[in-house]
Formats: sequence, C-alpha cells, structure tokens
Amino acid sequence: MTAQFLTEEIRRKKSFLCIGLDTDLDKIPAYLLKEEDPIFAFNKAIIDATHHLCVAYKPNTAFYEAYGIKGWKALERTINYLNEKYPEIFTIADAKRGDIGNTSTRYAKAFFENLGFDSVTIAPYMGKDSVEPFLAFKDKYTILLALTSNMGAFDFQTKQLEDQELYKKVLQTSLTYENSENLMYVVGATKASFLTDIRKIVPQSFLLVPGVGAQGGSLQEVCKYGMSDNVGLLVNSSRGIIYASNQEDFAKAAAKKALELQKEMSEELKNRN
Amino acid sequence: MTAQFLTEEIRRKKSFLCIGLDTDLDKIPAYLLKEEDPIFAFNKAIIDATHHLCVAYKPNTAFYEAYGIKGWKALERTINYLNEKYPEIFTIADAKRGDIGNTSTRYAKAFFENLGFDSVTIAPYMGKDSVEPFLAFKDKYTILLALTSNMGAFDFQTKQLEDQELYKKVLQTSLTYENSENLMYVVGATKASFLTDIRKIVPQSFLLVPGVGAQGGSLQEVCKYGMSDNVGLLVNSSRGIIYASNQEDFAKAAAKKALELQKEMSEELKNRN
Repeated sequence: MTAQFLTEEIRRKKSFLCIGLDTDLDKIPAYLLKEEDPIFAFNKAIIDATHHLCVAYKPNTAFYEAYGIKGWKALERTINYLNEKYPEIFTIADAKRGDIGNTSTRYAKAFFENLGFDSVTIAPYMGKDSVEPFLAFKDKYTILLALTSNMGAFDFQTKQLEDQELYKKVLQTSLTYENSENLMYVVGATKASFLTDIRKIVPQSFLLVPGVGAQGGSLQEVCKYGMSDNVGLLVNSSRGIIYASNQEDFAKAAAKKALELQKEMSEELKNRN
Repeated sequence: MTAQFLTEEIRRKKSFLCIGLDTDLDKIPAYLLKEEDPIFAFNKAIIDATHHLCVAYKPNTAFYEAYGIKGWKALERTINYLNEKYPEIFTIADAKRGDIGNTSTRYAKAFFENLGFDSVTIAPYMGKDSVEPFLAFKDKYTILLALTSNMGAFDFQTKQLEDQELYKKVLQTSLTYENSENLMYVVGATKASFLTDIRKIVPQSFLLVPGVGAQGGSLQEVCKYGMSDNVGLLVNSSRGIIYASNQEDFAKAAAKKALELQKEMSEELKNRN
C-alpha cells in the first residue's frame, strides 16, 4: 500500500483511526475461551465490527509472543484475514524491532513478506544500517520510534543531543537514510505541543500517535499541531476500543467507541483540511 | 541462573565464549534440509559439539521469526533442549525488544517464563518504564544495548547527550532503575578502546560483546580494557563458528573454531584474572 492510498482512505472514511489489537486472554469475554483460537475469534469480531470506522489495525506483537506458537498462529490468521477480507486497511506490526544489517533484513522479511504487513515499528537506537534494510522494501513503511508516549521518553529522547533533542536528531538523521520516503514516525500524543517542532522537520510524514484517550492525549491538540495537507496522522486507540465491554456485546461496544472517535475525526478533517 | 554462577562456569570451563545461533536455512548443510526440523537439527548438533567450550548460547530471534511458526517451534525446541540437557549454560534471547510498561511485561514473560531464557537483549530508547518490567524477574538478566558494533552506532549512541555521550548516559541512567543488579550490557567489540570509559560506569557488570572475529574486534583488546574481577565478559561469535563448514563435518568444524577461541580465552583468563 502507498501512503497516498492511505490518505485517500482517510478522506473516504473520514477517519484516521488505528485500532490496536492488544489481545489479552485475561481481558476478552470469557465465553470466547471455548473457541479453538480465542485470540483470532476476538480479533475477527472486532475487525468485522469496526473496519468501516478505522483505516488501520495495529497488533502489538508482545501480546502474541506471550502465548508462544499459539499466539503466532493467531497473529498469522489475523493478518491473513485482514489482507484477504479488507485489503484497503493499512496494517501495522507494532514490533519495535531493530538489529544490524542482515539481521534487520530478516525481520523485514518476516513482517513485510511472510506475514504481509504494510508497516512495522522500529527502534532507532542502532542507527542507519539497522533502519535502511527495512526501507528497501517498496510500498512498505517503517515507523520509527521518535517521541514515545511513556514516562521513560524523558530518560533520553527529550534530552539534548549535540545541538538538538535526541528525538529531533532521530527525525533529522532519518531523512538522510536511503529510501527515507518509506518512513513514518511514532509520536506520543501526550506531548502534542511538541508536534509543532516535529512538523518543522517532517512536514508531510505520517505520524502514528498512540495514547489518545486512555493515555490522556487530546485529539484536538494532535490535529491542531500535527495534521498536514495529506492528513499525515494515524491516531491509535487499543484498550479503549477493544475492551469497551467484556460481555457478548463486546464487538458492538467496540464499534460504538470507534464510532465516537471517528465522528471526532470527521469534525477535525472538516475543520482543518 | 545468577551472574555469580556464570562467573564460576567461566572459571571452570576457562571460557567466556557465547555462541550465536543465527541459524539460516540457506547456510546450513544441505543434507539437513531433509530433517523434519532442520533448524533444530542444526542447533542440536552445534550445541552437542561445542557446549563444553562455551558458557552461553544466543539465538537471534530474527532468524527464527523469519520462518514464521516453523521458526518459533525450532526456537522453542532449542531452548528446551538447552535447559534440559545443559542447564549450566547461560541462555540469551537476542531479541532487542522494548515497549512500554505492561507490554514489556508481556515480552518478559514470553522470554523468561514461557521460553525459559536466562536473559534477553533490550533496546534502551524508551527508557525506564520500558526496562524495569524486565528487571522485576529474579535471577533473570536484561542485556541493554549500550554501544553496538555496527556503523549506525555513530548515528546517535556516540553523540553527546547533555554532559556525556548517549551510550554513557544509557549506562549511567540504567543504574538508577529498580533491580538494576539484573542488568548486563551489549558493548560492541570493535570499539574496545571505549571499554575503559564503560568500566568506569559499570565496573562489574557483565558485558555481552559481539563482533569479535568476523566483525573485526580483537579479543586481547576486549580483555585488556573490559575484564573485571568477576571476568564480566561474554564474547560472542556466531557465523565464524556455526558456519565453519557447510558439509557433514559442520559440527566438528564448529567445535574446532570454538576450541580456538576457548584457548585464547583461557590464556587471557590466566594472564589477567
């Protein structure tokens, strides 16, 4: 998928919502545990109920790895289902990988080719030769952790590295990487006021914004400071949507929450774009 | 396993060798491809031939993930085999993970509890609350990327963050994390002269040193500047050992290469410790 197609889908659906599939067997409705693959059963129901309200799904690999082989099978079934049934949806493997050269290529193949995700999240700490192997894949996107939404972001990311804060240096340096047009960035919504500075460095890139809702960010702030001409925003919500109910109506409840966010997004798109 | 036990094993075996199990179906002897699980068959043969010459094995998860479910099964079988047959061996999941709070806990459970690794490599970019969930596991070690051995390390790690280089800030800050006694660090051997500075900050911590041999680091330099009273070194070699031959004698050839390194290490231990 291209970023241009993603923008078209955002305009068509009047939504830049990404739904995080952080599926946890302790949190899903108990009756699903009788299913052969409860994780996939849950994901499928959520996807079928919400696909028209969002433009992206983001499974966090930690939740799947925690269940071993069973988890990986559920991840595989989920991405296959998305690619077959809803090919217009942008898919994000929230894996936060990063290794050197040929090893990064392995991860890239695992997520882009074997699993068939459109994008993967990557940690920048190891620099250029850990990121470029991902960028070499055409029409696949590498979402670099820039400014994350957690407290630990203040340990290093916001500290001054030479002439600028580390996260800005990461943004600036990443633009010199080969095929940097395949980059997107993770930017924590809880720091919306930082978005002005970020947009000076990457005016058009897509930003994946976690942390609206449960983690306390404001959608209006994010849009005010972060929206670009091509929208350039994917705003994620995970638990706030997928665990809206743990009863049999969970998918319907998820759709209701997704609809609330989609409506807000529709307003923002109308007002600002 | 405790770090004290690891040091005792190093003294007993006169080796601080870690063997990287970066198992690649394109590189293993072709006749193994007929096996039901060629990756595990290869690993098992390498382990059986080299376990007395090394103190640690380090599968890099990228090589397993690249083969999907099949790869994860092989990883599971490999760690189970190590834990059952050679419980005295220190095991490292070279996974370079890192996420926020509850998600990091998922990764920690996946590697420490479900798979049963002694340690896992972690990227520090997301800071305190991304690392501490790993540190909460008793007698399990979190190996933080500090100074990696690749070119990209110069993108950020060696740049000045406030009053010191980023990798030093990572080391220093990590010491303030809860349960920081469960930390070890990845330090690239190709920058052995940096070790003096690193030892000023973490005088006794174990350092996992990749890049001796194929990547050009010198074992003597690493020992001269990096060895502590408790040895505090794990020196890794992957391809140089496991792909010493791609014929039927591959395990024997691997043992020969491992023996060469073990002998050098034995000398260094005698001279310096």
